[in-house]
Amino acid sequence: MKRGIVIDNVRPRTPTGLPAKAVVGRRLRVSADIFRDGHNVLAARAALRVAGSKKWQVTPMTALVNDVWTATLTPTELGLHEFVVEAWTDAFATWRRDTALKANAGEDIELELEEGARLLESRLRRLHRVDREHVRDAISALRDTDRSRSERLDAALSPEVVEPLTELTGADETKSAIYRVWVDRERAAIGAWYELFPRSHGGLLGATERLDAVAAMGFDVVYLPPVHPVGTSFRKGRNNSLVPSADDPGSPWAIGNASGGHTAIEPTLGTFDDFAVFVTHANALHMEVALDFALQCSPDHPWVTEHPEWFHHRPDNSIKYAENPPKKYQDIYPINFWPDAESDRRALWDACKEIVDFWIARGVRIFRVDNPHTKPLTFWEWLITQVHAAHPDIVFLSEAFTRPKMMAKLAEVGFSQSYTYFTWRTHKHEIVEYANELAYGPTADYMRPNFWPTTPDILSGPLRQGHPGVFKQRLVLAATLSPSYGIYSGYELYENEPFSDSNEEFLHSEKYEIKQRDFDRPDSLAPFITRINDARRRHPALCELDNIAFHHTGNDHVLAYSKATTDGSDVVLVVVNVDPDATHEDTLGLDLAALGVGDGEQYEAHDELTGATFVWYGANPYVRLSPEDPAHVLHIRSASA
Amino acid sequence: MKRGIVIDNVRPRTPTGLPAKAVVGRRLRVSADIFRDGHNVLAARAALRVAGSKKWQVTPMTALVNDVWTATLTPTELGLHEFVVEAWTDAFATWRRDTALKANAGEDIELELEEGARLLESRLRRLHRVDREHVRDAISALRDTDRSRSERLDAALSPEVVEPLTELTGADETKSAIYRVWVDRERAAIGAWYELFPRSHGGLLGATERLDAVAAMGFDVVYLPPVHPVGTSFRKGRNNSLVPSADDPGSPWAIGNASGGHTAIEPTLGTFDDFAVFVTHANALHMEVALDFALQCSPDHPWVTEHPEWFHHRPDNSIKYAENPPKKYQDIYPINFWPDAESDRRALWDACKEIVDFWIARGVRIFRVDNPHTKPLTFWEWLITQVHAAHPDIVFLSEAFTRPKMMAKLAEVGFSQSYTYFTWRTHKHEIVEYANELAYGPTADYMRPNFWPTTPDILSGPLRQGHPGVFKQRLVLAATLSPSYGIYSGYELYENEPFSDSNEEFLHSEKYEIKQRDFDRPDSLAPFITRINDARRRHPALCELDNIAFHHTGNDHVLAYSKATTDGSDVVLVVVNVDPDATHEDTLGLDLAALGVGDGEQYEAHDELTGATFVWYGANPYVRLSPEDPAHVLHIRSASA
Repeated sequence: MKRGIVIDNVRPRTPTGLPAKAVVGRRLRVSADIFRDGHNVLAARAALRVAGSKKWQVTPMTALVNDVWTATLTPTELGLHEFVVEAWTDAFATWRRDTALKANAGEDIELELEEGARLLESRLRRLHRVDREHVRDAISALRDTDRSRSERLDAALSPEVVEPLTELTGADETKSAIYRVWVDRERAAIGAWYELFPRSHGGLLGATERLDAVAAMGFDVVYLPPVHPVGTSFRKGRNNSLVPSADDPGSPWAIGNASGGHTAIEPTLGTFDDFAVFVTHANALHMEVALDFALQCSPDHPWVTEHPEWFHHRPDNSIKYAENPPKKYQDIYPINFWPDAESDRRALWDACKEIVDFWIARGVRIFRVDNPHTKPLTFWEWLITQVHAAHPDIVFLSEAFTRPKMMAKLAEVGFSQSYTYFTWRTHKHEIVEYANELAYGPTADYMRPNFWPTTPDILSGPLRQGHPGVFKQRLVLAATLSPSYGIYSGYELYENEPFSDSNEEFLHSEKYEIKQRDFDRPDSLAPFITRINDARRRHPALCELDNIAFHHTGNDHVLAYSKATTDGSDVVLVVVNVDPDATHEDTLGLDLAALGVGDGEQYEAHDELTGATFVWYGANPYVRLSPEDPAHVLHIRSASA
Repeated sequence: MKRGIVIDNVRPRTPTGLPAKAVVGRRLRVSADIFRDGHNVLAARAALRVAGSKKWQVTPMTALVNDVWTATLTPTELGLHEFVVEAWTDAFATWRRDTALKANAGEDIELELEEGARLLESRLRRLHRVDREHVRDAISALRDTDRSRSERLDAALSPEVVEPLTELTGADETKSAIYRVWVDRERAAIGAWYELFPRSHGGLLGATERLDAVAAMGFDVVYLPPVHPVGTSFRKGRNNSLVPSADDPGSPWAIGNASGGHTAIEPTLGTFDDFAVFVTHANALHMEVALDFALQCSPDHPWVTEHPEWFHHRPDNSIKYAENPPKKYQDIYPINFWPDAESDRRALWDACKEIVDFWIARGVRIFRVDNPHTKPLTFWEWLITQVHAAHPDIVFLSEAFTRPKMMAKLAEVGFSQSYTYFTWRTHKHEIVEYANELAYGPTADYMRPNFWPTTPDILSGPLRQGHPGVFKQRLVLAATLSPSYGIYSGYELYENEPFSDSNEEFLHSEKYEIKQRDFDRPDSLAPFITRINDARRRHPALCELDNIAFHHTGNDHVLAYSKATTDGSDVVLVVVNVDPDATHEDTLGLDLAALGVGDGEQYEAHDELTGATFVWYGANPYVRLSPEDPAHVLHIRSASA
C-alpha cells in the first residue's frame, strides 16, 4: 500500500489525452484538485519541460478555494511540452500552524518544541550546507530551556529556517500523470484577420496594391480563399446558379482544372512570382498571409484522372460528386480518405501533406482549413502532427461550422484555432454564456476561438439588411471578446443583402462573382476598424480570453465586460448596446475589484472609439448608447494606478 | 492508420477509473458522445457483463440531441460489472435515408438501386440462413427493371431486410474502453433510516421493544451508534463537558475499555445474545440493522496497550490524542494508519477489516462509517474492496461532513452512499441547485445521497427552535428529494434546542446523556412520518433520483418538483413552502409533459399527506401552504392514464 495525496482534475487537458494548448512567452495556468485525509498542511508544485528535455521549469502551486491549487508557468519554446503536478504533506508547516495556534491559546507547548526540533533534525541531511547552519541553530534554540517558549518557537519560524524547509518534498510525495501541451506562436491565439478575393482586385498583383490599406486598418493576417485553378465542369454561376455565363469565374473552392490542382495558381490570378510579391509585401507590412486549404476537387482536377482511386465510385464507374440529398454539388468531387488499398491511402495522405509543404515553402505559415469536419479526424491528427514536427510555427484555422462536439474535437486533434458560433450569438444572455464557455469551459484548454461577424456563406441576425451601427456593434464584439477575429472584404462597406428571407447566404456572394468595390467611400467603416485594431494593439488585456469578466447591467440590451492583465497594468471595459433598433441607457453594476479600482476611488474611463474621457466614481456609472454608436471601449485607469 | 468513430464522455464513470455504481434489477443508463466526420448514419450499442464473464447483455443505443447516445441496461447480479460502448457507420441505413430522399425529390435512382443491391450482397455472408432468403429476394427486386423504381426500393425497406442488417456492425466498428460499475443491492440506494441509542431504551433489549413502533412508522433501516464499551479516561459529561458526573455514560464514540474494544458490546447495553435478539426482531419486521463503524479508540481501548504501534506518539512516549488546535479531544486517540513498519500497517488494516467481518457474522450488513475523511482514502478503497469481494451485499454509508471534493472521492473509492450538505440547504434556489447537482452532475455516477434533516451534532437553519411545521417541511424534503433519508430518534418529538447561538449542536445531545422520551405524546410527528414512508413505499417514482424535475414557481418560497418512473406509470408532484414563518400562495408553472399530462387534459392530484384530491386543469394550478402544513405530496393521475 502506498501513501498518497489526491491529485485530480489536472488542467489544461483534453478529453482523450491529446495535448492541450499554450502560447510561447505567455502564461500557462496549471491547476489541479489537491487534497488528502485529515487536516495536515499540503504543499504542491507544477513543473514544465520541453518534451524529452531533462530541464524542468518548476513553480510552487498555491491553494485557491475548494481544494483547487494553481500555478503559472511560461513556456519559452515552440512545440510539444510536458507538465506534471506534485503534492506532498508539509509536516513542518503543519507543525508551525498547530504549535502557533496552541501557543496563542496559552497552552503548554514544551512537547511541541521538542517535536519541532526532531522534525528539523530529520530534514538536516537533505539541506544545502548554507541552510543547515540556520536549521541547526533553530534546533538548539527549540531545546534551550533557558529561553522563553515564545523565543524558542520564533527561532523555528524565521525565514532562514522556513524557506529551505519549504522546498523539501514530503514522504508521501505524489505525482500526477504527465500531461502534454502544444506550445504555439502568438498568432495561433491572437490576431486580426482580413479576407480578400484576389480576383476582385484583378489578381494577385492588384491585391498586393490593396495590402497597404489593409495594413493601415491594423490587420495582422490577410487570408486568401483558394488561389488555385477553378474547374469548368458544372461551374456555378452568380448566386450559385447552375447555368453560368461565359465570364462567370466559378467558385474558387471548385479546385483544379487542366492547368493544375492544389499546387497550381489560377492563371487569371497571376504567377508564382506574383504570389511571392504578394507575400513579400504583406510581410513588409508586418502582416502574414493565410491560405485556404480545401481538400476537394473539381471534376477537372488532375487527381481525378491521375488517381481515380482517391475518389468514391458508383456502379457505372462514374465518380461520386458531393451531395446532401436531395441537393447535388456536381462541381465538387469529395475525396475518399479511406481507399481500399492501404498503399493508396498512404499515397493520398502524403499528397495532401505535400500541398501544405508546397505552400509553406512559398511563405505561407497559416492555413484556413475548409470544412474539416467532412474529413476524418484521424487524418487531421496525422497531418497536423506531421507538419508541426518539421514546422512548429504553422497555424491551422478550422472552419468547423458543425456540431459542438465535432468543433471541439477538431481543436483537440490539433487545429490551432476555430471558427465559432459567434455569428449566431446576438442576444446579451447568449453572448455572456458563450464567451464564458469559451473562456472558462473544458474546451478552453485546447480550443481557441476566431470570431467572424460574417462569412461569404453566412449573413445572419441583425446584420441582414443591417444599418452601419450594427456593423460597428458586431465588430466591437468580435474584436474585443475574442483575441482572434476577422472580417471579410466588403464588411467595411456594410454589405448586407441576404440571398432570400429563408437563406442566410449573401445575395451576390463573392464566392461566385467578381466584386468591384469603392473602398474609398467616405462613409466606409475603415476608420472605425482602424481605431478598434489600434486599441487591440495597445491593450494587452484584449489579447487574452480567460480574463473576461461580465458585469451586471440592469438593461437586457446592454452588455458590459472587462478584461485586465494579470498584473492589473491594463484594464479595458467594453459596454455595448446589442439592440439594433433602439437607444438604451443603464446604470451599470460594475465589479470594481475586477477593474482594479479601490473602494471609494475615482477612476477614468477613456473611450478608445471617440477619445472622450469620463471621470467615474463608484460602481454605478450611467451609460447611454444609440444603435448608431452602440459601443464604448473604455481604458480604465484608477487614481492609484 | 485506423478508421474510427469518436466515442467520448462515456457514462457512468468516475474521475479516476474506479467503478461507477448501479443497483441490481434497476435501470443502468449508459451514455456517450458518438460522432464521426461527414453525414453518414451511425449505429451504436452498449454491452454489460459481470466482470470476467463471457456473457454480455447487449442493447442498441439511440441518439438524443447533440451527439449524445444512450441505452438502458439492467444488471441482474451483485458485484463488479463491466460495460463497453460500440459504434459503427451503418452503410445500409445511410443508403436507405439518402435514396428515399432522392426518390421523394423525384430524382432518377437507378444507380442508387444497384448500389443498394451491391451493399446487400456484401452483407449476405454474415446473415443467418433464415434472413438470407429475404435479402436475396430484395437484391433481385432491386435489379428487376420490369418493376417500378419505388416498388424496387420498397423491397429493400421491408422489416425482414432492415432488421437483420441493422444488427451487423460496420467496417469501422469502434469500441470504447471497458468501464467498470459496481452493482449493489437496492438498500445501497433506497431506504428510510431511523437512528436510536439503545442506552436511552435501557439497552439492547429495551431497544428491541421500540422496534415495532419504528417499523410501524415505515422505516427500512435501524441505525445504532457504537454499541461498544465506552472509555472512562477523560470521559465527556453532559453537553460535552470535561467534568462528567459519576453516572454520565460518556460518548459512545470514545470506544473501548477494559471489557473490550470494537468487537465487544458495552456491558450496560446487554450481551451478544441481546444483540442477536435485536437483529432478529428487526429483520422479522423487515428492517435491517446498520452499525456505526468509528475507527478511533478511547485511551482505555485494548489496542492502546496491545498495539501501541498503531497510534501516534509524542517525544515523551505518550500517545497523541485527537486535537483540532487549540481544541483537544483527550478522550479519543486517533489511529495511525501508516505505522513505520509495513508489517504493522498490514496487521492494523487487517484488524480493522476483522471488525467489519465480526459484525457481518452477527447479522450486520450495513455500516455507517464515522468521519471517513480523517482516514486514508487508500485504506477505504482497500477495506471496501476486500469486504465486497466476500460480501457484495454490504452497504457502507459515509459520514463525509467534509469538503465537497473529499465527499465525492470517498464515494468514488467505494462508499455506497453519503451524508450530504442537505442539512444546510434551506432556501429554494439552494435546494434546486443541490438536488440537480446530485441527480445529474458528474458525481451522480457514483455518489448516492442520504438526506438527514438533523444529526446529533447538527441542528441548523429553521429547525433551530423550529416549530412542528418546520420538522414536517424538512422531513418531506429529505424523504422525497432523496431515495435514502433518515432521522435521528427525537426528531418526531421536535427536539429543537440549540447548544448556543453560535454552536450548531444540540443542547442535551444524546451523544453525552441518556434520553427519556415520551414517544406516545399525542402531538408526535409519528403519524405524519408514517404517511410519508408509506407514500415512499407505494410510489416507485420516489425511489429514483435522476428522474427529478423542478417546476417553475413564481414565489421564491414555494418549491415544486416532480418525479416519474421511466414508463410514466407513477408520477408524484411535491410542493413545499420553505418559509417557516409565513403562508405563501402561488400559481405554479408546471411542465405538464413531465407529469405525463397531455395538453388540455384534466388530471387528479391526490395528496398523500391529507387524502384530499384536487382536480386540476392546465399548467397553473393555485396552491397555498401555511408554515404549519407546509407541503403537498401529490400523486398525479391524468385522465388518459
